[in-house]
Order: sequence, then C-alpha cells, then structure tokens
Amino acid sequence: MSMTLTRADTLRAFIDIVGEAHALVLQDDIKPYLTENRGLYHGSSPLVLKPASTAEVSAILKLASATGTPIVPVSGGTGLVGGQVPREGSDDVLLSLERMNRIREVDALADVIIVDGGCVLASVQKAAEEHDRLFPLSLGSEGSCRIGGNLSTNAGGTAVLAYGNMRQLCLGLEVVLPTGEIWDGLRRLKKDNSGYDLRDLFIGAEGTLGIITAVSIKLMPFPDQVATALLGLNSLDDAITLYRRARRDCCDLMSAFEFMPPLAFVLAREAIPDLAMPIAGDYPAYVLMEISGSGLVDIADLMERFLGGVMEDGLVVDGVIAASQAQARNLWLFREGMNEGQAKRGQHMRTDISVPLSRLADFVRDAEQAVSEALPDCTSVSYGHVGDGNVHLNVLPPAGSSPAEIAAKIYEAKTVVNRVLDEYHGSISAEHGIGRLKRADFEERLDPSHRALLSALKQAIDPSMVMNPGCQLNFPGIS
Amino acid sequence: MSMTLTRADTLRAFIDIVGEAHALVLQDDIKPYLTENRGLYHGSSPLVLKPASTAEVSAILKLASATGTPIVPVSGGTGLVGGQVPREGSDDVLLSLERMNRIREVDALADVIIVDGGCVLASVQKAAEEHDRLFPLSLGSEGSCRIGGNLSTNAGGTAVLAYGNMRQLCLGLEVVLPTGEIWDGLRRLKKDNSGYDLRDLFIGAEGTLGIITAVSIKLMPFPDQVATALLGLNSLDDAITLYRRARRDCCDLMSAFEFMPPLAFVLAREAIPDLAMPIAGDYPAYVLMEISGSGLVDIADLMERFLGGVMEDGLVVDGVIAASQAQARNLWLFREGMNEGQAKRGQHMRTDISVPLSRLADFVRDAEQAVSEALPDCTSVSYGHVGDGNVHLNVLPPAGSSPAEIAAKIYEAKTVVNRVLDEYHGSISAEHGIGRLKRADFEERLDPSHRALLSALKQAIDPSMVMNPGCQLNFPGIS
Repeated sequence: MSMTLTRADTLRAFIDIVGEAHALVLQDDIKPYLTENRGLYHGSSPLVLKPASTAEVSAILKLASATGTPIVPVSGGTGLVGGQVPREGSDDVLLSLERMNRIREVDALADVIIVDGGCVLASVQKAAEEHDRLFPLSLGSEGSCRIGGNLSTNAGGTAVLAYGNMRQLCLGLEVVLPTGEIWDGLRRLKKDNSGYDLRDLFIGAEGTLGIITAVSIKLMPFPDQVATALLGLNSLDDAITLYRRARRDCCDLMSAFEFMPPLAFVLAREAIPDLAMPIAGDYPAYVLMEISGSGLVDIADLMERFLGGVMEDGLVVDGVIAASQAQARNLWLFREGMNEGQAKRGQHMRTDISVPLSRLADFVRDAEQAVSEALPDCTSVSYGHVGDGNVHLNVLPPAGSSPAEIAAKIYEAKTVVNRVLDEYHGSISAEHGIGRLKRADFEERLDPSHRALLSALKQAIDPSMVMNPGCQLNFPGIS
Repeated sequence: MSMTLTRADTLRAFIDIVGEAHALVLQDDIKPYLTENRGLYHGSSPLVLKPASTAEVSAILKLASATGTPIVPVSGGTGLVGGQVPREGSDDVLLSLERMNRIREVDALADVIIVDGGCVLASVQKAAEEHDRLFPLSLGSEGSCRIGGNLSTNAGGTAVLAYGNMRQLCLGLEVVLPTGEIWDGLRRLKKDNSGYDLRDLFIGAEGTLGIITAVSIKLMPFPDQVATALLGLNSLDDAITLYRRARRDCCDLMSAFEFMPPLAFVLAREAIPDLAMPIAGDYPAYVLMEISGSGLVDIADLMERFLGGVMEDGLVVDGVIAASQAQARNLWLFREGMNEGQAKRGQHMRTDISVPLSRLADFVRDAEQAVSEALPDCTSVSYGHVGDGNVHLNVLPPAGSSPAEIAAKIYEAKTVVNRVLDEYHGSISAEHGIGRLKRADFEERLDPSHRALLSALKQAIDPSMVMNPGCQLNFPGIS
C-alpha cells in the first residue's frame, strides 16, 4: 500500500501515533540525536518519535512503508560506526525506544531474562544480578547503550571469550518488520530447529531490517570467584603461545585475555595520572588475564598454579595477581584508561579488525611496519581480545598536527592497514558493525554474489526500503 | 533465464556436467537413495548426480534453475525427518556430495578445520584428533552422516551442553546458491560483524536455500580428562535441581547431563542382553553425567567432591563413577542401547521437543499423564539433554498391535503430546529439523507474519523454487 500525503500531514500522522508529548519537533530538542558522541557524524531530521509499545512501533513502521518515509532507529547512541545518525540534509525520522525499557520477566530457573529493546545494558546486568545470575555482556558504554542497539550491532566486549557475543547470548526476539507486521520470535528455548533462523538475520542488521522491540537472553550462574592478573612478556608471539596454553590448562574457565603494548600504560596515565604502575619493569607485551568460576573449582589456586608453570618456563617474565577486587579493578583501569588516553590525544585512526589466531602476531607486525613506513611520524597502538583474534590497531597522528593533516593521515593509515588486512583475509569489522563509517570499505570488498544476496534479503524484508537508509550498504532502491 | 528442453535432453545435460561415471540412471542403482533408513519415507527420482567440485555443483544448480528441475540434496541419508528423500511420484533429481569429502585444511594454531560438505562426521573428528584437537559434534550416526547434512539440520547431540550445536561450531560456509552463484563465506574468524549473517540462514535450512559445499569449523583443545557417572535419583525434579547445582559447582566443565527413566535399562538390555547393571537399586530417575577438561583442572577430583556433596544432601541416592574408559563406555551403552531397544519394539511415536528448563519436569509429567489417559495401553519413555531443555518423549504401542493400530496410536500420541507442548510454548523440533515429517505440524503453528517472512526469504534466494521442494514448508510457487 502506498499513500500520498503532504509532508506536514505525514509528520502529523506520525506524531498522532505516539502523542505530542512523546514526539520531538523543535530542532533544539532534536539536536542531541543528530550528532555522534565523538563528533564524527552530523545528520538532520524533522522528528523524533518515542513510542511506548510494540503496537506503536508497528503503526509507525506501517505508516513509514506506506508513505516511503525513511526511519532511523536510535538506541543508546553509543555505536562506534555512525549507524544511529540520520543522513545529512535528509528528512529521516528518528525512532527511539527509550520509553520501552521494562524488564519484562526474569525466569531464573530457566536462566532466561526477557526485556524491552530499549533497556539500558546496565539495568539488564543489574536485574540478572538481583537473581544471582550473570548477564555477561559488558562494554565501556554499558550505562547508556541499550540492548536493542547491542543486538543490532551484535556487540562483543571483553567477555566474548567465555560467553560469546550478543548473537550467542540471544534466545529469541520480537521484531517489528518494516511493513509494520510483528514477528513474535520471543522464545526462550536453548534448542529450536524449526525453520529458517530469522533471529540471526535481525541481529547485526543495524536497524536496516526492522526494529527489535524485545529480546529473551541467556543468563549464567554468577561467578563468585574471579582471579585477575597482569603479566609482562617478551613479545606478542609469547602472548599468543600463553593464550594457547591457558586455553588448555584452564579449559573454559578463562573469561578474559587482553593483550596491550607498553604504550598502554603511558596512555592510561595520561588519562588517569595517579594510576599506580602494577609491575616494576618494562616489557614488550602485556597480558591482562582473568579466570572466573563458581562453586567447587578453586579459581585462585588455578591461577597461581598456571602462572607458576608459565613463569618457570620463561613464557611470562613478570606478573601480579590482584589480591582484592579493588586491585583487580585497578588492573582493568589500565585497559580502560588506555582508551581514554587515546581520545585525549585527539582524533586518530581506530580499527576493529579480526584475523585467525594463527596469524594475529604476524598481522600486527606487518601492519605496524607498513604504517611506520608510510607514516613515520605517527604512532601505532595495537591491543585487543586475543582469543577472538580481535585487534584494535589504532594510529595516532603526531601532536600539533592541523585538522587537515590529521584527516589525511587517518585516511592514509586506514588504507595501509586495510591493505595488509586483506592479505590476511581478515574482517574490517570484528565487533562494531559497518554503519556509515565502514560502508565504503565494506562495499569495496563485497563480491557480486554476496552483494546480490544482501540486496535480495533487504528487498524481501523491507520492500519499501525505508529502514536506516545509508547504513551498511547503498541498497538499490533506497530513496 | 529459463530454458525449454525435453525431459531427456535436460537429464542428459545434468549427466554431462558430472560425467556418466558419476550419474546413476538405473532404478536399481538409484533405489538406495529413495528410502529413509527406518522405512518411513519412499520417493522417486530419475537421476542421482555425484559432482566432484563446487564448480560442478554450481553448473547443476544453474541448469536446475534454468529448467525448473527440482533438486533434492542428499547427504549421509541419516536425517530423522525425511528431508533427504525425494517426493513420491516426482522427477526430483538427487544431488549427493559423497565424492566431495576432502579435509581441505587443519589450522591447528587457529583451532580451525576446513572440510568439504560431503565429509563424513567421523572423518572430521578423526582429522581434529590427529592434531590433538576435539571436534565435539557427536551423534549415533557419525560413521555415515555428512557434515553438510549436519549443518543443514543444525545437528545437536549430547555435547551441545558444553560446546553448542552446529550453528555455534561453524565459522564460515561456501554455499552454491540455487541460481548457481557461489557465495564464498568460508571465513575462519571468530568475530565478524560485517553485514547480514548469511551463514546462519543456510544452517538449518535443510537444503531449501542452496548446497553447502564447504565449511570452516571451530576446534577445541582435546579433553584429556573425562569423568563419567551414572546416578540414581528420586525424581525428575531432583534431576533438574541436580543439573542446576552441577552448572554452578562445575562451571563450564560439564560436558553431558542426560536424564533417563528406569525403563531405559530394560530397553537397553533388550538390545544388548549382556549389559551389566551398573547400579544395584531401582530409582525413579537416572542421570548420566560427564565432566571434561584438560590441563591443570583435576576433573576426577571435581566429580568426586561434587557427588560427595549431593549424596550427602540426599539429592543423589546412589551412583557409580566410571573407573576406566571401558567402564565409561559401558555407561554410555545404556544411553545408546535404550534407543536400539525402542527400535526393536517396532514402530513408535518419537518426538524431539524443547521447553524452558524451568518447566521441563512439569511438561514431562503433564505430557506423560495425558498420553496415559488417552492411550492407557501405550508406554511413554522420556529422556533427553536436561541442560538444553531437550526431551525425547516417545510413545510405544503395546506388543502385538497391527500396523493400522500402530499408525492410529502414533497419530493420537503425537496429537496429545503436541497439545501439551503448545501450552508450554515449546518447540516441536529441538534438534532434528522439520523435513517432511513435521511440515504439517510446523505449518499449523506458524503465524501469518512468520510464514510470510519465511516465504519472502525462500523467494529471494531460490526464485525458481527448485531446492528440496516439500521440505520444511509448502512454499508458494513450488512446482
């Protein structure tokens, strides 16, 4: 069905669905929704809608499809690839689930929680903890990101190693399709092989196939024992050997294994000056390792025996095990402060890369080498989630660069790193998604049969091509 | 593109693609492909094609789409829902990957193996083990089922608890689409958030969306410690309480937790008469539990301490821990023999159900009660994978029933069990798929928006509607 309405009538009809109190029409009110946190993206929009129910979301999308009105879903607004920002100069209507933030149900005996798509991640974690359960997704932005956005970007984080990303944590979805139809796939079953897997199609689609209005998610026993250690090593190769050994020696009890370069500590202390150095010497590579468990397994003893063995073998040169939760928190502050420190140095090139574990050390070496040849005055900083093969290889321009110089260096650094990455058959987006930021890089790498498949699926589910235009791919037919 | 050829010319063109030596045209040669192992399905076909390469599969599907020739993919032929059998009275062409059975690569340092779609499951397990790695998918039919079929049905088995089903084990796919296009998604990355998740769409599609010609799969460290125990309990409720406690006390080290009724032992000994009873007394419920690990965790000690605690608390009344691999094998023989025993009693009603764990005991009680009221002369036997909420509730007609009586009782039992299952919002297919066997039951339960989505996806990927017609759903447009 297609409708012809004046633009004013269309906007009025959208507003009527949610009520005037829940529609933003003044540019001053809309403005906070139009810029991305780091200022990388700006967009325009005449209207922000804040529906209160799945039925209202359905009415909005039905009207959008009928009138050909582009809809940009906004969740917590913390995405790192600009998928939440409308197009510049557009009339894209923004749809926010911020009012749909109920914990619908905790079924502790089934280890399942069911929540609205607009729930803030931290509130889902808290609801789980109140039932002595863990919801393991953990991100820097957990106080403001929302679960619908976490699903739409298939969010990862440091705990993927032990618990998987959103895709692995999700049991079922309720989705409003672009036509306004509601797909009720809100099951709470661990196994269900009945028909095509629709759930995984919506997860990671970055709002281009519909709006996730509710989700059922797996919970875990809350780990009452956690051992955290910071280790100094002679090389990234040794860090990978250490990971392989930990994977065997500690089985599935390892919950984090992050590698960091020496520069991590410099950057962390630029952001948090009074952070105390946990290890005396300087080492070419550091590992932040965590083992978690509950019940009868003695996690502290396991960590001590493991480290005893690998230090005796010379694989780890120095290390410290946190003696308290506060000390563990301090060790993690280096990991988090490192990120803040990079931000404080100003705009720089950030990546979110994955390669097979067997090639991780070679990739980092080759890519850093290529950057240092092409951009000798820039600084590379590589760190990441070893077990997932996920590296954030970032490049910082020298202090005092002009905005134009910075832009040129970021472009050059990205080109150089992606060229090396292609030789390694890696992914340009391990955990952040494509959004607007990586669309061109993604499209460049798509072979025709893959592109045709993506377009056919988009066309099948969003025939009016109204959902999040410009995100992921320039689909044919997007107005 | 559509072509008009005589039927003989079309068959000839198919044969030319693979060569005469690799096409079966005589009904005597084709016959073994036309019946399902248990004799539940019979079909007809003029031709079996055995391509040797992805390119040949591509040429076959291109021709099939152009000529509108239905293609039924056959893998190991061990599927339990008839998805591998062509339609009766049809001219469906069978496509077998039995010649595409190479282990393409083992990347042990990345914990990845890449194999042809036609590889027999046991040969994949063996290749992994040769590199001191575990490929954890394990099924009764592993000596003959093929990995492409395991993917197409998203196979499960007893190790899903610890390692996940095929969906969770798969990293990437190479798929020949119905048009003959090849989608190269054969990545070996643990994290990759670039564009729609095509992989999970083909997994579980039962050959209705294309042919999986190759797969990259995750491997695990080989567990060099395994502790197996058979336990006697007072009720299924206690078994579920025990599972919850084991999940907490043994963390992620539990690799199997199967519950069985007392009848399991009777059935197992009908199939394997000299099987020695491992526990003296009779108990209302039994659990077969396994903990696995490698390296520094002492698995035997963990099992002993766990059982010591739960026996002291009266949750487990009696139990035996296997003292050797041979003893462990014997305990598993009860689980496997129980299946053989059911088969020996003749045709019966088998289910593959899942419900949330919090409702598992209530469901089994209610469903068995409903069966005993409706069919007082039949015997229910319920067992399954507790942690996955996956129950096989089977109903055995009394000895001496006529074929017509058996058919009527199976139909009635299925109706009764599914009615209870619907009240519990469970799945009619936890791990076996829909195939032909459950198509009607699946269709009955589909709401219109779900059905429309499935049809739209099928139409988008298989516009000529040639792939495995009659499987999963009667899609509109299937000839």
